[in-house]
Amino acid sequence: MDKNNESRFERGTRALSDIDGEGGRKVVDSLADIAPDFARYIIEFPFGDIYSRPGLDLRSREIATIAALTALGNAAPQLKVHIQAGLNVGLSRDEIVETIMQMAVYAGFPAALNGLFAAREVFQEKHSLAA
Amino acid sequence: MDKNNESRFERGTRALSDIDGEGGRKVVDSLADIAPDFARYIIEFPFGDIYSRPGLDLRSREIATIAALTALGNAAPQLKVHIQAGLNVGLSRDEIVETIMQMAVYAGFPAALNGLFAAREVFQEKHSLAA
Amino acid sequence: MDKNNESRFERGTRALSDIDGEGGRKVVDSLADIAPDFARYIIEFPFGDIYSRPGLDLRSREIATIAALTALGNAAPQLKVHIQAGLNVGLSRDEIVETIMQMAVYAGFPAALNGLFAAREVFQEKHSLAA
Amino acid sequence: MDKNNESRFERGTRALSDIDGEGGRKVVDSLADIAPDFARYIIEFPFGDIYSRPGLDLRSREIATIAALTALGNAAPQLKVHIQAGLNVGLSRDEIVETIMQMAVYAGFPAALNGLFAAREVFQEKHSLAA
Amino acid sequence: MDKNNESRFERGTRALSDIDGEGGRKVVDSLADIAPDFARYIIEFPFGDIYSRPGLDLRSREIATIAALTALGNAAPQLKVHIQAGLNVGLSRDEIVETIMQMAVYAGFPAALNGLFAAREVFQEKHSLAA
Amino acid sequence: MDKNNESRFERGTRALSDIDGEGGRKVVDSLADIAPDFARYIIEFPFGDIYSRPGLDLRSREIATIAALTALGNAAPQLKVHIQAGLNVGLSRDEIVETIMQMAVYAGFPAALNGLFAAREVFQEKHSLAA
Repeated sequence: MDKNNESRFERGTRALSDIDGEGGRKVVDSLADIAPDFARYIIEFPFGDIYSRPGLDLRSREIATIAALTALGNAAPQLKVHIQAGLNVGLSRDEIVETIMQMAVYAGFPAALNGLFAAREVFQEKHSLAA
Repeated sequence: MDKNNESRFERGTRALSDIDGEGGRKVVDSLADIAPDFARYIIEFPFGDIYSRPGLDLRSREIATIAALTALGNAAPQLKVHIQAGLNVGLSRDEIVETIMQMAVYAGFPAALNGLFAAREVFQEKHSLAA
Repeated sequence: MDKNNESRFERGTRALSDIDGEGGRKVVDSLADIAPDFARYIIEFPFGDIYSRPGLDLRSREIATIAALTALGNAAPQLKVHIQAGLNVGLSRDEIVETIMQMAVYAGFPAALNGLFAAREVFQEKHSLAA
Repeated sequence: MDKNNESRFERGTRALSDIDGEGGRKVVDSLADIAPDFARYIIEFPFGDIYSRPGLDLRSREIATIAALTALGNAAPQLKVHIQAGLNVGLSRDEIVETIMQMAVYAGFPAALNGLFAAREVFQEKHSLAA
Repeated sequence: MDKNNESRFERGTRALSDIDGEGGRKVVDSLADIAPDFARYIIEFPFGDIYSRPGLDLRSREIATIAALTALGNAAPQLKVHIQAGLNVGLSRDEIVETIMQMAVYAGFPAALNGLFAAREVFQEKHSLAA
Repeated sequence: MDKNNESRFERGTRALSDIDGEGGRKVVDSLADIAPDFARYIIEFPFGDIYSRPGLDLRSREIATIAALTALGNAAPQLKVHIQAGLNVGLSRDEIVETIMQMAVYAGFPAALNGLFAAREVFQEKHSLAA
């Protein structure tokens, strides 16, 4: 990788670690054996390009991501990573729960229910780790 | 409708008008001949119950809705209503564009593209009305 | 086509005409230039195999189809064909509207709204034809 | 909650218990710690407002819900609750299987297959309980 | 079943076994108790009609199926069967991984990630079987 | 943009023009006023990173994209661009039609039907341009 890719990669690595913390690193590591280039793309595009942009704060970006993943309803592991990410960037549990509940209006009650159950798992893990 | 339904209905009517303005009223009116009760439900549940809750500000709620409708990609008219609603509650055009662009990561580039084209239509209508 | 395909084909043609009437024939004809075999498959599998099965009456089958197409929200032309089909097999306008409204619970309010607008178009066409 | 909310709540509680039985109560209870208000909304809107409406019988309403959840394919737990609900309101196993099989036409064979596997689980649980 | 249905059924059985091997047979067998007719439809329509058509080679057909199931993101078991099917008809692991990675562009990074994890499971099972 | 971004950008611009031709350029140009950075991302990530990768030929990549966009069913304009792209990279009309028809198995008949209608539009435009 030449200098500029390093800089996108470095910027993305920093953003991934600031936002997703452990969860993000685990996803990237889990790709090492099957698709290492895809791990690099995740760091460079979503985190190096998108999340690093000015113009929308990280709290708003995580609200958008939690809303979208709850509504799509087919990416439970990634939703849990971003519920944790929401807490990491300063969203309260209430703000996350409100965001997920609102999805009942746009994607139906089952999508919102499954999002709330994902949130409970994340909150409980966090609690037991804190204990 | 007895007193309490009136109060949910009144609260929802106020929220619908504060948030969606003209767009919301048009949607409700458009249901008068086919499903008037559904028009009432839209006022009572999404707006009287959900958007009226404390715990998440309206700017964040519209970011969540714009993100979800962009990601789902099958509700263009409602996305346009909520892009306008986002402007109504104080989101900047940049914040709306950033929210939609971010959906390329979670729902693919076509969903984000179609969201950006919806935003352009809303921004242009607003501009021409202002002119 | 040998005898048995004719029999599936004939059974499907009868079912298609009983259920979808004009709308079904138009869809099949519209495939003649691009994918004639697909027109045959539509007649043979959905109509010759599935809709011709005993065990669920046609009214219930059209309720299932109207519900699914409203919830999926990405097949407006087919939803309109099946709203007409619902009327053809004896569903009342109210039963169709109730089915679509219920989808707000499972697929969100925008999906239900767009389904209701499709129903209004079909009901109005029917009305103007009747006039 | 004042009188009318109680009445929506009471009507919804009765409908939830008539339709979903144990399954519904479990879902509502499971929300107590994370989003108690959402448990109330589930009782009030889907069950107090929608399922309590005249104009479509409960057997037809469950066919619509089983069809939609099978087609959407991203809410397996809720599909299982409503397959049980279908049995509770008088649908036969055959009618439920026919409804799910038909979804192969509108949402593809994998969605129908996963719906059939959900039905088998529900039928087997019921059988073993009955044994 | 008369002669021609046998021939669709036989052609489909051959195609199912050539393409999906064990995985396909298991799916069909798993339907014996709940929906035996659906097992027959899977053999007759997807395999007897579609996969048996000239005009697109099996490698291309499996690329199309792996792409679609990755993008839809709600049919993990069927995606795994078709990743194995891709290997059976001569796709390399790299070609399968490239197909899945590309879906990040059209269905988002979570859909591609979950597709890659499904591929890893299939490749590892194959490896351990080979060991 | 420093040297390396230029190189990703240049590689992507070449790939976009080889694959999508006019259609791709139009999409990129259409973003100039609303989200110019997103136009750059489309060139850099999908085309500069993904489509430029060795390991899967462009014909296979377009089969994957046509399959996915047909199955998702919520991005008709992008599907049309990629049906044209398929012709540009050497797919025959038959191969494109076979790919779309196969999606009836994985995403249902309406998704395949709407894909076939998109293909007809593209083939007709091409024909009339050729005339």
